[in-house]
Order: sequence, then structure tokens, then C-alpha cells
Amino acid sequence: MSKQDGYHVAVVGATGAVGQQMIQTLINENFPIKELTLLSSARSAGKRVNVNGQEYTIREAKPESFEGVEIALFSAGGSVSKELAHEAVKRGAIVVDNTSAFRMDEDKPLVVPEVNEADLLHHNGIIANPNCSTIQMVVALEPVRQKYGLKKVIVSTYQAVSGAGAAAVEELMEQTKSILNKETFEPKLLPVKSDNNHYQIAFNAIPQIDKFEENGYTFEEMKMINETKKIMNMPELQVSATCVRLPIAVGHSESVYFEIEAEDVSANDIKALLLDAPGIILQDDPENQVYPMPANCVGKNDVFVGRIRKDIDEDRGFHMWVVSDNLLKGAAWNSVQIAESLVKLGLVK
Amino acid sequence: MSKQDGYHVAVVGATGAVGQQMIQTLINENFPIKELTLLSSARSAGKRVNVNGQEYTIREAKPESFEGVEIALFSAGGSVSKELAHEAVKRGAIVVDNTSAFRMDEDKPLVVPEVNEADLLHHNGIIANPNCSTIQMVVALEPVRQKYGLKKVIVSTYQAVSGAGAAAVEELMEQTKSILNKETFEPKLLPVKSDNNHYQIAFNAIPQIDKFEENGYTFEEMKMINETKKIMNMPELQVSATCVRLPIAVGHSESVYFEIEAEDVSANDIKALLLDAPGIILQDDPENQVYPMPANCVGKNDVFVGRIRKDIDEDRGFHMWVVSDNLLKGAAWNSVQIAESLVKLGLVK
Repeated sequence: MSKQDGYHVAVVGATGAVGQQMIQTLINENFPIKELTLLSSARSAGKRVNVNGQEYTIREAKPESFEGVEIALFSAGGSVSKELAHEAVKRGAIVVDNTSAFRMDEDKPLVVPEVNEADLLHHNGIIANPNCSTIQMVVALEPVRQKYGLKKVIVSTYQAVSGAGAAAVEELMEQTKSILNKETFEPKLLPVKSDNNHYQIAFNAIPQIDKFEENGYTFEEMKMINETKKIMNMPELQVSATCVRLPIAVGHSESVYFEIEAEDVSANDIKALLLDAPGIILQDDPENQVYPMPANCVGKNDVFVGRIRKDIDEDRGFHMWVVSDNLLKGAAWNSVQIAESLVKLGLVK
Repeated sequence: MSKQDGYHVAVVGATGAVGQQMIQTLINENFPIKELTLLSSARSAGKRVNVNGQEYTIREAKPESFEGVEIALFSAGGSVSKELAHEAVKRGAIVVDNTSAFRMDEDKPLVVPEVNEADLLHHNGIIANPNCSTIQMVVALEPVRQKYGLKKVIVSTYQAVSGAGAAAVEELMEQTKSILNKETFEPKLLPVKSDNNHYQIAFNAIPQIDKFEENGYTFEEMKMINETKKIMNMPELQVSATCVRLPIAVGHSESVYFEIEAEDVSANDIKALLLDAPGIILQDDPENQVYPMPANCVGKNDVFVGRIRKDIDEDRGFHMWVVSDNLLKGAAWNSVQIAESLVKLGLVK
């Protein structure tokens, strides 16, 4: 990476589950930092955190907080991004935004570096980081699309509660304790904090992530559908999704069915392809019970793929099982990776 | 139901998770019982159990145990069924077998009463009860098949650990406690007791149920594929499955994509159809966050269906979410229901 003395980086939402992972990932990846500004809501402002042995005070995010900032990583909710991302850009920062605020804006690239890094070249100050469940799926599908063409995708997700924030992990753990101790409890957060009803997540499965749209799909499902088409630049790709929240703290899994354009491709062809693909670790050895699982992916940047097999009836149809740490490749790592790409491509002034 | 004085019923595997549910279901459904014989392996023989206020001693299952038995419900593993089911038939009993021992035998009906009750008329002494994950899916699909024709099914399952027996539920609970208490633990049973490796199930997802076949599918997945075709008498039906074990005690969920033959059918048409379908409770009101969840299905005989919506791209494609108590409709209740059908059709001599 260039610029010897590093960059002035801001993290907005520094006390959140993803914000904390962003800070840790910047450190782990040795991102060249000259100055680190940690921002949050007024509520969390004043908190002190230790980053790599140095004490930082978290400050309230305001327009003037971005003076001198070169790269701003946002993960404090869509409303904060809508309010402040343009203020950051106005002051010279490039924004990598990990909310849904700008993802479908035509003039803002939605980027997964393994898939469409070149879209960064046309950025207008704000780059959107896709939804966690979308990212891991497109990383696994992109090599297939490039080599064999992609026609149709049907995905069912198995999503961890940390996707709904640190408080949702706490809710899972507290409910689990209550059930083991045969105590009563009152669900307060999941599936969606701002929705009317809250349901038990411990030892349960909730087929709702984010609110419902009028077409019967949830917003999470529509994100997977629309973002996949945009990232792959394939408006004609057929994508459908069912998104389910499960009693897992970290690590999203996906059962992905996909149909390719090419004929006479074998499951072994797909395995060979993904074995050498960027960002992917192939874990596919059924005989020895080797396949990806969320418990094994925690803390890792990679997308783990396994259980690749041909559909029984459809020669161009395949199934696979895709697992990744939703806080890392699904959020923090993909954002930092975008920042690395921006630096690499000389896009940070 | 006929025969005033009732039938001599035997339950084989009376100490297992499903066996206990079978006994409870016989009582709950007021099945006409003249005599109840509870059988098990030699290991569990001698145990005393209370059934509806009466004490029973569980006896070792042997060929001669079936003298005088008219209906024998088997749920003690495939090897016990292979050893003893024919002995029971030889002595005049009709066997309803809840193992995979005979399911794909051409001369033995595989029955879900809502779907193919008439197949009982051609029984040869043994009726097979399908796999839990298959049953709830075909109950939901059959009304669709009858009215609109069925072409293709792609299912991803979210299966509870009780499908692997009572010991698997204990393993889930013990592991969960260990993790909450930050203690170490050693997985010993899941995903498959007799397989080489055992993995953490608490706060995890394991994409393996039963052992792997040479084609890369698990036996559980092949059961769903082959049994669905047999029960619906549609060898040409395209079915594929991905089966996943989750940290849920009771209640299987399924994300089902299906394509019908008819054109111009709406999601509301499918909802209206399933609202009046046998064995189904429609829970489908996204606006009010009404959809099926395993935590709400425990102890109920019904199959719960919701989240019915049209595929975004395919006019004949639909998605739905199907949940049921895997120990009841998935096992005990379907077996007792078969026994009820046998009585109703005058097939028990």
C-alpha cells in the first residue's frame, strides 16, 4: 500500500458490533493509518476505547468531525449515513458505507472487491458496502459466472443474530439461559427491533429478517435479490431468496441453488474452479465429513464453500453451502478491503 | 372408529423419543386399544412406564412378542424392523414402520394419509411411515399438485435435533450450558452417531443429516427426494434437497421452492387452496408478522405453512415456509394416523 505516512481514517459507529470489528480489522490488516477518528452517536460519545495499546475517546459524529478525514467507514445505521456521508464527502473524504442507505443508488458503486473492484473507478465519493448475506454469496458465485455463465439463483439463508447487532446476541444468550433455567422471558428485539412483534430466537427459527415489503418478501430478501444483480452487473439474472434468523451468534450460512449457462459441467469442475478463487476456502470432502460450518468461520475473513453437487434432474443446476463471518467478510472486512482497493487504485487523494 | 372392544396394539421402541410420542398420541387420539404391548431392546426391557394412569412393564421385542398383536407400530431403528417386522406380520399383525427399512420397497406402501391413503389398500402387511422432513413437505405440496400440477421442488431444511433421538436433544442442551458457562465439551453424537466425526451443534449449523452417499448427497436428502416421488406417485417430479441440522430441540422448518404446471396462478390462489387443505394450518399474514415457527408448533399434529409468495422471475414458481413437530406429524402422529386409516378402511382383521 502507498502513502508512507498513512491516511486519516474515521470509523462512524465505532461502538457497534461492526464498528468494533472495523477498527480491529484495520489493525489486523495493517491498514496505513496516520490518524484514527472514532465517531458515534451522542449517546456513546465520551466513551474511551483501547486500540492497539492506544487510548481513544469516541466523539459525537457531526459534519465538522470529518475535517481532514480521507477515508470514512460508516456503520451507524442508514439515517446517520444519509445525514453525514455527504458532509464527509464535502470535506474531502471518500466514504465506504455499510448501511443500506445508498446501495441501490445508480451513481454509487456497490462493491465486493473479488467481484467488481473496477466499479470503484466510477465512484462519486460514496461507495456502498453490500448486505452481509449478499456479499458471501456473490464471492462464491462470481467465479462460476465468469467461467460458465449464470442464469438463476435460489438461496435460503441461515443467518446469525449478530447481523442484528450486539444487543441481539445478548438477547439470544439471555433467552437461552432463561430456557435452560426454566425461567420466563420476554422477547424485546428480534426479529426486527422497530417492528411490532418480537419473538423467541433461542432454540427457534424466525423466517423474517428486516421488515416485510408489499410483495411478501422481506427487505433483507429484496436486498439479496437486487444487490446481487447490481454487483454482478446482471439485471437479467434470476435471483430469489428466503432469509431466516437462527440461534447462532456469528456466521451466516446459505443453501444456494444455481443454474449455469454452460452444458456438461460437473460438480468437480465447479470445485476445481472455487479451489483457486479469490477470497474462497473450499471445504468440500463429504467422505471425511468436511464442509463449512458457522462455528468454524468465526474471526476469519474468507468465504467457506462446500457441499457442491449437481442437481439430480437439471444438468445445469448445482447446489452449494456457503458460510462466512457476517461481521467480517459480511461487513467490516469487506469495508476495509474496499478501502485497501481505493488506496491500491490511487483513488484516495 | 369400529371394533367396539378395540385392538391389540404393540409399540416397538417404546422408550425412544418417537416411541413415547406414539404412546401419548394413541391416548390423545382415543385410538381404540384393547391391549397395549410395549416393546424395546433388551437394554431397556424391564423399565416400567405409566400410560394414562396404568403401569406397564416394557418387554424385550422378540418374534413371539407379537402373538395376538393386531397393529404394531415400529420405531426402534431399521435393523430391528428388518429383524422383527416380518415376524409380526407372520403372526397376523399389520406393521406401521417408522424407519427407513422398507420405505423404498416396491411392494410396501409409503403413506401420508392426506396424500395417498388409498395406497393402504394394496399393503402386504407392512406400511412404511416416511421420513419426518418428507411428510410435512408433501402435506403442503399435495393440494398444489392436485389443483395446479407440480413440476419441480427445491427444498432447504432447518431440522431439529430431536430427529436424531432424545440423546441428541440432551447433547444440544449440555453443549449449550457448557458454552454459556465457558466450559469445554466434546461432541459425541451429532451429526451422525455412527459416523467418524462429531461436531458442535449448539449455536451452530451442520449441513449433514445421516451419512453421505456417493453422489455427494446425504441419505436424508436422498430420502426426501425419493420418498416424495413415491408418495406422490410422480417418478418424473424434479426434487432436490439440502438438509441441515440446527440448534433447535423440536420442530423442523423447510424453505420450499416449487414450480407448478398451471399458468397465471397467484400467491393468493395458493393461500386460498392451503387454507382449506387437510392437515394444514395456514399462518400467512406478513403485515402482522404471522408465519410459522418451530417454537409454536411443538406438541401439535398440524403442518404449518406461511410466507407463500410468487418467485420474482418465474411465473410458475413459488416459495413457502413449512413447519411441523417432527416427532408428531413427522413420526408418531403420522404412524397413528395410518393406523386410524387402516381401521377406517376395514383393513385390520
